[in-house]
Amino acid sequence: MKVRVAVNGFGTIGKRVADAIARQPDMTLVGVTKTRPSFEAGRAREKGYPLFVAGSADVAEFEKAGLPVAGTLADLLGRVDLVVDAAPDKVGKENRRLYEAAGVKAIFQGGEKADVAEVSFNALGNFAAARGKRFVRVVSCNTTGLARAASVLRPAWGIGRWDATLVRRASDPAESKKGPINGILPTFHLPSHHGPDVRTIFPDLPIATTAVVVPTTLMHVHVNHVRLERAPADVAEVLAAFRRTPRFHLFAPWERVDGTPQVMEYARDRGIGFNDMMENVIWEDGVRLDDRDLYFFQAIHQESIVVPENIDAIRAMLDLAPDAATSIARTDRALGLAPA
Amino acid sequence: MKVRVAVNGFGTIGKRVADAIARQPDMTLVGVTKTRPSFEAGRAREKGYPLFVAGSADVAEFEKAGLPVAGTLADLLGRVDLVVDAAPDKVGKENRRLYEAAGVKAIFQGGEKADVAEVSFNALGNFAAARGKRFVRVVSCNTTGLARAASVLRPAWGIGRWDATLVRRASDPAESKKGPINGILPTFHLPSHHGPDVRTIFPDLPIATTAVVVPTTLMHVHVNHVRLERAPADVAEVLAAFRRTPRFHLFAPWERVDGTPQVMEYARDRGIGFNDMMENVIWEDGVRLDDRDLYFFQAIHQESIVVPENIDAIRAMLDLAPDAATSIARTDRALGLAPA
Amino acid sequence: MKVRVAVNGFGTIGKRVADAIARQPDMTLVGVTKTRPSFEAGRAREKGYPLFVAGSADVAEFEKAGLPVAGTLADLLGRVDLVVDAAPDKVGKENRRLYEAAGVKAIFQGGEKADVAEVSFNALGNFAAARGKRFVRVVSCNTTGLARAASVLRPAWGIGRWDATLVRRASDPAESKKGPINGILPTFHLPSHHGPDVRTIFPDLPIATTAVVVPTTLMHVHVNHVRLERAPADVAEVLAAFRRTPRFHLFAPWERVDGTPQVMEYARDRGIGFNDMMENVIWEDGVRLDDRDLYFFQAIHQESIVVPENIDAIRAMLDLAPDAATSIARTDRALGLAPA
Amino acid sequence: MKVRVAVNGFGTIGKRVADAIARQPDMTLVGVTKTRPSFEAGRAREKGYPLFVAGSADVAEFEKAGLPVAGTLADLLGRVDLVVDAAPDKVGKENRRLYEAAGVKAIFQGGEKADVAEVSFNALGNFAAARGKRFVRVVSCNTTGLARAASVLRPAWGIGRWDATLVRRASDPAESKKGPINGILPTFHLPSHHGPDVRTIFPDLPIATTAVVVPTTLMHVHVNHVRLERAPADVAEVLAAFRRTPRFHLFAPWERVDGTPQVMEYARDRGIGFNDMMENVIWEDGVRLDDRDLYFFQAIHQESIVVPENIDAIRAMLDLAPDAATSIARTDRALGLAPA
Repeated sequence: MKVRVAVNGFGTIGKRVADAIARQPDMTLVGVTKTRPSFEAGRAREKGYPLFVAGSADVAEFEKAGLPVAGTLADLLGRVDLVVDAAPDKVGKENRRLYEAAGVKAIFQGGEKADVAEVSFNALGNFAAARGKRFVRVVSCNTTGLARAASVLRPAWGIGRWDATLVRRASDPAESKKGPINGILPTFHLPSHHGPDVRTIFPDLPIATTAVVVPTTLMHVHVNHVRLERAPADVAEVLAAFRRTPRFHLFAPWERVDGTPQVMEYARDRGIGFNDMMENVIWEDGVRLDDRDLYFFQAIHQESIVVPENIDAIRAMLDLAPDAATSIARTDRALGLAPA
Repeated sequence: MKVRVAVNGFGTIGKRVADAIARQPDMTLVGVTKTRPSFEAGRAREKGYPLFVAGSADVAEFEKAGLPVAGTLADLLGRVDLVVDAAPDKVGKENRRLYEAAGVKAIFQGGEKADVAEVSFNALGNFAAARGKRFVRVVSCNTTGLARAASVLRPAWGIGRWDATLVRRASDPAESKKGPINGILPTFHLPSHHGPDVRTIFPDLPIATTAVVVPTTLMHVHVNHVRLERAPADVAEVLAAFRRTPRFHLFAPWERVDGTPQVMEYARDRGIGFNDMMENVIWEDGVRLDDRDLYFFQAIHQESIVVPENIDAIRAMLDLAPDAATSIARTDRALGLAPA
Repeated sequence: MKVRVAVNGFGTIGKRVADAIARQPDMTLVGVTKTRPSFEAGRAREKGYPLFVAGSADVAEFEKAGLPVAGTLADLLGRVDLVVDAAPDKVGKENRRLYEAAGVKAIFQGGEKADVAEVSFNALGNFAAARGKRFVRVVSCNTTGLARAASVLRPAWGIGRWDATLVRRASDPAESKKGPINGILPTFHLPSHHGPDVRTIFPDLPIATTAVVVPTTLMHVHVNHVRLERAPADVAEVLAAFRRTPRFHLFAPWERVDGTPQVMEYARDRGIGFNDMMENVIWEDGVRLDDRDLYFFQAIHQESIVVPENIDAIRAMLDLAPDAATSIARTDRALGLAPA
Repeated sequence: MKVRVAVNGFGTIGKRVADAIARQPDMTLVGVTKTRPSFEAGRAREKGYPLFVAGSADVAEFEKAGLPVAGTLADLLGRVDLVVDAAPDKVGKENRRLYEAAGVKAIFQGGEKADVAEVSFNALGNFAAARGKRFVRVVSCNTTGLARAASVLRPAWGIGRWDATLVRRASDPAESKKGPINGILPTFHLPSHHGPDVRTIFPDLPIATTAVVVPTTLMHVHVNHVRLERAPADVAEVLAAFRRTPRFHLFAPWERVDGTPQVMEYARDRGIGFNDMMENVIWEDGVRLDDRDLYFFQAIHQESIVVPENIDAIRAMLDLAPDAATSIARTDRALGLAPA
């Protein structure tokens, strides 16, 4: 029998997670919520996702737009085993009371503080820690990208220290109001909060992160310098480790992918929903090993990288898979990230 | 029996036209050409499109990249009825000699001058003019957008004069070298070449066009002021005319699409290949009628708008459809632009 | 004796108007206001401009920053003949009550509605209309640019109709929060409010304006198509008319200025304060005449174009100059726009 | 007696160095070269800088533009003691033969390889090394910024290791052709060449640099993590060291400078020529000390930071100052970077 899942908030993350749930063989998408009509609400209807209204939404407004409303968030919560909260940052915290009242399990996103949930989650990093839990938080896009990389490097060679500079996109592609248009904004919190956030997954990981915001919409880029505890044989050994790990995508030099515009063009060519790139992107040309000093870039698609993690979190919380590898493989096949 | 078609050049336009051909029930994609390996060549292989090499391409380079090469452009031309030339601007002109020598019909893109072909083409505008022709040129993205709008307005109300300012995207999303990053570049050719180019479809159309280039990658926007010869009853009559014409997509105010970022987000949600938006985009809020003065914006997706036009040009040249409406309907159903 | 002037609001417009006042031989800058400390407040102190606090400003905060405060806005108003209101849009309207209570004349900026003042103002357009007035509104940057052009074209050849598309910069260079980063936003008010706004200066001017917002910070560009009532002899006659009018700057083809980035580079080279470009910028290559059809581009530096207009408005309101030409000449010499 | 200096190349760097030379009490600017007319050549004439032509320049073209030509580069070289080569990257290398033939000393810019000169130069770093030399290379903008910071940190606390990520602006503000418009481009040379370049000034400095290119024109931003050998008492001690060093500019939190757009706005307010910011920019909020781990951002104005370094290099090569401190003080007073 399939588990019944709702998505509260049908925006950038929510619409992707909804699609991902709908594609899983062991899950049913019971409904999604919107607070006001929009083309995205229209798409929910076209895809056959029952539309519920959240917050102070005006049902009449939906009806005027020709969008039938199936009920309220409370109605929706009454019909599901678990809700994925994809509300704007900090709203998830408020929503938690509703989920508690309804007696449903809930997943929160990385825009919430860690204490919103019992455990912070990354599929490669700590799948087992979320098993059976009631409230789980999937860490943010940048933290997910770092946690995945840690999952590869730490067991293989140990991490003596790690300096990561996060070059962050300033807004998502669909946003029209946020800037800057021309300029670089340092994040004055030094080191940035991303290091401590990765340590919610890997306690004691010796990582120091810094961040700047730049005027692009496509992807974040992480610039990494890791001092490993043991030297890999050569850079090929490192590349092989990334390559065999799920949710890493490597570009070879002959593919002529010189930056994030070409990565996203690849994603458009590949054609997974929304032209997403849910994997950590590694350029083979962008990995360098000097004995134990490993340098590498990775690009992170902020809109989609947490989508498969949400799916795996559902499986962990509802005991749908015996271990991380099984869940990841099932998720990735359903999403087209791995061969069917 | 299906007609046999090649695509020479597998870049922004070529890869889209190739996919579109592969989806048509009355056409076979025999092969595509590349001049060097790239992730796009890799995608051709994954999609099962035989890969031929054009120009001075180095076959060994392809083999090293694991990309099997089926032959040369000459080989490919020997196996087809028609070739769609999607080479970079001005190269099409040179290629024409090869097509003549091979005795194949050819379609050129709007980056070529009009005299590269016997006729310039737009499906709504002059389908019949291309019937049986050997060399046809599909007009450029901006000209296609204007020609489609003329096809709606002229028969309905007559066009007394038309001022159009084309606000052009400076580069495509995948380009990393072209600017400007911050600034507006006027096109000093006044009025711009787009007016005369529309008149290759609609001779004597009283249109004056001007253009500026702006730092965005997503879409062009046309700002139109048309003095109609006869007054429509009201703006609703105009909107209805756009709405019932193929290859126009209207956004209602409730959809909250405030500019090109949201249009392309809609396209990602809709999920047609590459997240394309092959229709002229009209905002209902962006159409205003003052008696005979019609103002309207339209957004033009430079990467894809000519794709269905290429398909219809193939049908016209090879006599695969009795008229424009039949061809357009067939094309649009195959591409997902119209209900199947 | 010099007239005593205050500037309320020391932001983008206010700091420029303050500097301009300080340079006029017939005016004294008595003080400027800020609502909170910033590097701009620091510059006011370094330039010796007495700093007053407006609104709910916290004087202690200024003192902590080492910025001595000379008093409140009320104190400042008590010491001047006239105040230039350079508060954020719509705040000027509220401030008017304070100015009335203090019995001082006031100039408002174009972000306010026309009814904030007795008359809307442009120096070339209607200097005399502001003579002796108590409340005057200097029209916005775009309207000022259009009004100046109308001042040249209408008397010389008459204007039969005028289509202007305003390609607007989305934010000023110093802003870090406003977007869009990548996209074009149509202004859905059609025709745009700029036409009616020009008619506050030139009633009955047959102009229809449209606008889009684009991701750049440097300048607006106006794309103009004017149907003149009488044909100029040739384009040189038109260029000569622009050239001999104050506050127009023409670029010759040999100067290789291909767009707004190069215009602002010229402004940096020229070195007028803040690297401003207070003139309408005309590219000689960007003017085309077809009998009575005149096409031309003009670039408008949104940060500074209204600065000399504010100075002339002061002169008109306080009867410091017999006519527009005298005031403009005095202003432009003091600002470095004309030879000393 | 003043030394006689020429500037070969009057572009972004050359025009600034020319102005800087013209302001020094101990130098005479004999002339500058251009290869073709432009508004910048026009400014040279307006400033009274004799204009010479370089390369294959067409004198007739200059005359047609009304720009009198004083002679050729060879003529100019015959009249000077030293030439500052500000030609495009890699052209300096070719020019060196001309300088050798003319028997003049020459300064090259950081776009040339280190072996173009006898010594690479930074005023704070190794002034004495350039004393009396014939050919000196002023290191690039990024290297200059790093070398200045090393000059502060190394003597005070020792540098155990240094990770610097250079977030580079993709083009200068006046460029209209270079992109990317939307995207991040990693520099695949890992670690980047900047580390070895700093070691031309400070051999054995344990610095590892990485770089990305981002779509902005204003400034580079360096993200630094330095492991010091000895712990400073507190962050205030570090800030004090930066503050008392010439060519560092610190912004306090109350100045509300949140990124490079605001830094350049400050520069416009300050009003040094071209609105330049020749100092390393440090945000007090952007410096963090954890025992011996120092994190700090610095912003580097790529157009101007090397200008004072060129002036000091002239003094070193022609023995015009007894030591770095004297030269720097003289330069900075003349340029307005230090009180007169």
